[in-house]
Formats: sequence, C-alpha cells, structure tokens
Amino acid sequence: MNHSEEHHPNPKMVPRTEEEIANIVKRLKRIEGQVRGVQKMVEDNRYCIDILIQISAIEAALHKVGLHLLERHVRHCVAKAIREGNGDESIQELMTVINQFSK
Amino acid sequence: MNHSEEHHPNPKMVPRTEEEIANIVKRLKRIEGQVRGVQKMVEDNRYCIDILIQISAIEAALHKVGLHLLERHVRHCVAKAIREGNGDESIQELMTVINQFSK
Amino acid sequence: MNHSEEHHPNPKMVPRTEEEIANIVKRLKRIEGQVRGVQKMVEDNRYCIDILIQISAIEAALHKVGLHLLERHVRHCVAKAIREGNGDESIQELMTVINQFSK
Amino acid sequence: MNHSEEHHPNPKMVPRTEEEIANIVKRLKRIEGQVRGVQKMVEDNRYCIDILIQISAIEAALHKVGLHLLERHVRHCVAKAIREGNGDESIQELMTVINQFSK
Repeated sequence: MNHSEEHHPNPKMVPRTEEEIANIVKRLKRIEGQVRGVQKMVEDNRYCIDILIQISAIEAALHKVGLHLLERHVRHCVAKAIREGNGDESIQELMTVINQFSK
Repeated sequence: MNHSEEHHPNPKMVPRTEEEIANIVKRLKRIEGQVRGVQKMVEDNRYCIDILIQISAIEAALHKVGLHLLERHVRHCVAKAIREGNGDESIQELMTVINQFSK
Repeated sequence: MNHSEEHHPNPKMVPRTEEEIANIVKRLKRIEGQVRGVQKMVEDNRYCIDILIQISAIEAALHKVGLHLLERHVRHCVAKAIREGNGDESIQELMTVINQFSK
Repeated sequence: MNHSEEHHPNPKMVPRTEEEIANIVKRLKRIEGQVRGVQKMVEDNRYCIDILIQISAIEAALHKVGLHLLERHVRHCVAKAIREGNGDESIQELMTVINQFSK
C-alpha cells in the first residue's frame, strides 16, 4: 500500500516519491540513533565537551535534513502554487519556516 | 551500581549526580520520540511546512539541552579548572563548543 | 535621477521602488550608527557584557533586514522567474542564500 | 589621555589594553564601511542575491568580533570573578550572552 493512501496529502503538496521518503527516513533514523548515543554518553558520565560536540553534530545533521526538505518544497510545492497563481499564501508559509530556520 | 563505575569520568569533570543524569536523559528520550514522529510524518507524506516546523522545534529542544549542559560545565568543570590554575585548556575547549553552538 | 539609471539592474530583478530603497537604507543607516556606538563603547573600555549584548542586537537587526530583502526577492524576482519558466537557477540562488542565513 | 580615564571601567572588568582597543575598533570600522557599502548597493538597485550575500558576510564578521570579545571576557573577567569567589553572577551574565549569541 502506497504511504499516501494511509493519509490524504495536503492538496498544496506535490507528494514525495517512495525513494524520496526512504532517503529522508534513513537520515532521520541515523539521527534517532545519534540521540540515543548521547543518552548513553550522559549515563556514562562522559565529559561534557564530548557530549556537547556530539549534540552540535546532531543539530547540524537535523538542520541539513530541514534544508533538504525546504529546497524540495520550494522546487515543487511553492513553484506549483506560483504557477497556479496561489503564490502569496505559499510564500507566507515559506517565510515563516525560513524565519525559524535562520534563528 | 553508580553509572560512573561503568566508566571512569574524565578527571577534568565534576561527575553528574543521578538526578542530573535522569533529567537530561528524560529530555533526550523526548527528542528521540519527536525524531521518530517526524519519520512517521514523512512516511505519511505530510505537508512539508508541517514537517519543517516540527524539525525546527526539535532543533530548538536539542539546542536547549546543549545550553543546559554548557552552563553546568561552566559552573562546575570550567570553574574548577580555573580555581586549580588550569583555566587555559578548559577555556579553549569551552570556546570551541561556544563557536559550534553559535553557528 | 532615478537610482536605477546610474546602474542597470540585473534583468532577473524586479527593481525596487524609491520608497522601498529609502526604507531599507534608513534601517541600514541606523545599523551603521549602532556599529559606531559599539566602537565608542570599546574605546571607553565599557564592560564586555554590555558590548556583547549590543553586538547581538546589531546582528539581529541586520538579520531582519536580510529576511526583509529575502521575502521581497521571493515575492518578486523568484516568482517572476518561476512564472517565466526560469525557476531552477533562481531557486538555486535562493537556497544558497537561505543556507548562509540559517547557519 | 588613556581611554579609561574618560570612563571608569566596571570593577568586574579587566580593562582592555590600548592595543586590544585599537584592534577591535579597526574591525568594527571595517564593518561600518561594509554596512555603508550595502546602502550603496540598495540605492543602485543591485540584485537582491548579491546584497543578501554581503549582509550575510557582515553578520559573520560581526559575530566573529563578538566571539573574540566573549573569549577575552571569559579569559580575563570571568576567570578573575571565579578566582575571587564571585563566579555565580559572572557565569549568569556569560550564559545570557551565550544564549543570545547562539540563537
């Protein structure tokens, strides 16, 4: 069963392919594992600096996944909205996210 | 068995109490759960903006855990190093982490 | 003489109005003044924390001008490029800037 | 006349040397010039992407001056406060600034 059938994608959205989904989920699973790794470091009373460097690396990896999704969103969903004359709402949404991502 | 016995903490470090460890691990487990939640959103082909807002929230939560650990490190380990006359190395480490955290 | 006559704007660009130019320049002049203010604080050997808080405020003000220009760019130049079928290059440029702004 | 005589430095502070003051002011003057440069780019209706890249570069230069001052503050003022047993207030101030700088 295709993922989308479980859930009706937002009409503004250009659905992701199975391949796109698998790639992003793989990266998120690695991040999930890294977060568990930091839990272990804390439990082992590892030196704070080592833990902080690892947390910073996870933040960077998560940020990259976000930028990947953001670019995909601009290329597909925002471009579609603009071509269909519905650019305003889509650009407003985009700026809200860019604002959060660039804090 | 105290966590530290499994692992000899770095001599530069003021070991965390069991309570401190439990508090940080609890926050990290919540973040781990949120990362799994985003995987589900991607698999369900949820709208990119909703996913991006969630990723941004996880980044913020992770960043807060980092700042919490950073403050604890300054109050305990860095202060100890400075009092014992070993401030230079400790401050160098601190600046490396501050640099990464403030990117 | 209209500003643009001194300088032939990039064909990809929807030129700014005089009003838009005046508004952005006003904000940048304020920032310029704030930077001079910090120079004075340093020369007066003011406490580092006071100076750091002021530098952080200037960074935030500059960042806001950047986001303002970014939104204007998306609404006008990027939307125009997408409508005219030249979205790819424009989106590539946009992502380069978003990447830098969200470091 | 030494800068400090014009202004009684905060007792928590280890006053900057003339050389330190000159180095930081020089960097800030360069940033001031760059901000004026962006004003000119806006007045000349230069392409938004070129302006945004320049704004991002100024933010980075300003951030570096901030980190330079932060390190100097930790090495001198915070270390002094800790050695004199007044670490708490100084560390609280430091975390406030680190928090702002790492937004």
